[in-house]
Amino acid sequence: MLFLVLDLLGVAVLAFSGALAAIRARLDVFGVVVLGVITSLGGGVIRDVLLGITPPSTLRQWPCLTVATVVGLGTFLIAPSKSLVRRIILVPDALGLALFVTTGTSTALTAGAPTITASLVGAISGVGGGVVRDVLLREVPLVLHREIYALPAAVGAALVAFGIRAGLPSTPVLLAASVLIAGVRLLAIWRRWDAPRPRK
Amino acid sequence: MLFLVLDLLGVAVLAFSGALAAIRARLDVFGVVVLGVITSLGGGVIRDVLLGITPPSTLRQWPCLTVATVVGLGTFLIAPSKSLVRRIILVPDALGLALFVTTGTSTALTAGAPTITASLVGAISGVGGGVVRDVLLREVPLVLHREIYALPAAVGAALVAFGIRAGLPSTPVLLAASVLIAGVRLLAIWRRWDAPRPRK
Amino acid sequence: MLFLVLDLLGVAVLAFSGALAAIRARLDVFGVVVLGVITSLGGGVIRDVLLGITPPSTLRQWPCLTVATVVGLGTFLIAPSKSLVRRIILVPDALGLALFVTTGTSTALTAGAPTITASLVGAISGVGGGVVRDVLLREVPLVLHREIYALPAAVGAALVAFGIRAGLPSTPVLLAASVLIAGVRLLAIWRRWDAPRPRK
Repeated sequence: MLFLVLDLLGVAVLAFSGALAAIRARLDVFGVVVLGVITSLGGGVIRDVLLGITPPSTLRQWPCLTVATVVGLGTFLIAPSKSLVRRIILVPDALGLALFVTTGTSTALTAGAPTITASLVGAISGVGGGVVRDVLLREVPLVLHREIYALPAAVGAALVAFGIRAGLPSTPVLLAASVLIAGVRLLAIWRRWDAPRPRK
Repeated sequence: MLFLVLDLLGVAVLAFSGALAAIRARLDVFGVVVLGVITSLGGGVIRDVLLGITPPSTLRQWPCLTVATVVGLGTFLIAPSKSLVRRIILVPDALGLALFVTTGTSTALTAGAPTITASLVGAISGVGGGVVRDVLLREVPLVLHREIYALPAAVGAALVAFGIRAGLPSTPVLLAASVLIAGVRLLAIWRRWDAPRPRK
Repeated sequence: MLFLVLDLLGVAVLAFSGALAAIRARLDVFGVVVLGVITSLGGGVIRDVLLGITPPSTLRQWPCLTVATVVGLGTFLIAPSKSLVRRIILVPDALGLALFVTTGTSTALTAGAPTITASLVGAISGVGGGVVRDVLLREVPLVLHREIYALPAAVGAALVAFGIRAGLPSTPVLLAASVLIAGVRLLAIWRRWDAPRPRK
């Protein structure tokens, strides 16, 4: 139950992030909705394909698809201004990352994947939707050029995988890892943390 | 039988569209053939991976691969002029979309997918080859920025899925849906239909 | 055993090529490591998904992941100069191509794929990591615009597939095909071989 709520919440925030990115790229209403849907379902589809769950569960349910479509359409209709888009666009991405990393890792464990595989699949599933969104809009994916993005995703996924394997109750583990990932990402955005770059 | 013909026809027109796009991007002869092959097989490979049909059926047959290679090479050899490429490049894409949406949906139903899953897999399979082509050439995929692209794909896929589930004979359903999708797309290209864009 | 060595060697050289490309694109330390990992694991993940081996074997083992991370980090730390990167960047890509084409084809045969499927999966698996690397950095993939890239990959894969199917001992076949592919690619880079382009 908690799991379903977290999953739908992840779909909603990632659809919002995809729709915002599409609006920034000046796509039309269909482009906004389609990019919202692809961004929000992408991570789950990649996760299920990697785990051999076919057809992917996100393609078997009305709720995910409906939520993604409604959020995409709603974002287009409220038509946020350019400056608002610029200020908030990274926030839903951070929340979606946190939610999909934790639910993805947990799904992989349930499907019988070993601990390391579950961590990797969880991290990929959290990062996946955003990578697809950025590639389709011809941008270098956030995970490659943003300060502190892959690290919290990988650490959060490992936390969930090792925590649940160690017998900790899954609800608090999922929530704690989500808060950790989202918190670190939002802090990194707010404080403009920088990682070292190659020498000139 | 009809199914195989539609499938090979889809491969041929998408190979043509990929080769034209590669010529427009000034790739060499290998690039033209490879992009033709990737564009024409991409949608079917994505479809089969989503349905758990592995290895994908398009990678198990000589006919698809041969048709794609021959069309790619032939397109390079006839060397259409720049202005001709610009005028016709969207046409094979529209035909390929129509053919892969319908055969993709039908394949998914045959593989036992629920109605909604079959519609989604069909739409993805129709759109997939073109998305891969555009991403490899660093263009924003047609499905995101073209008036009226995702809509006929989704409607056509739903038509096939619900039609066949409702017991209608599959041959006329597949043909009608293909004509509908291709017709709407070609009309949209011809009349330059526009969808609403976000406010400035 | 030989197989494992070739596979890990392929992971190492492709991680090196991904890290070099990330350094050229001025990514930070995380971007360099992540792109190294994605580039080196990408081909194997695509191969396993196409063959229905889930979760992909590269996501189930510490060695691949460790080698990829260490090579990525090491490449960042030694910080090669711009001109050195430009001169050597195609070399690890050529070696990775050779190693993944041959081990990919061999894996596909072991998984029971028909000869043609094994050749295609091998070629895709060799090309895959580099394509993902280039798409994420918004470059047209080498396989599309480099003289003589897809051809040696396809010929090498077919050589392995038909050779092993014909009963030849696998060790010399794998080595010969690797040398052939890497040799042709390196020669093409060194001599700047060009394939015919479309007329103006």
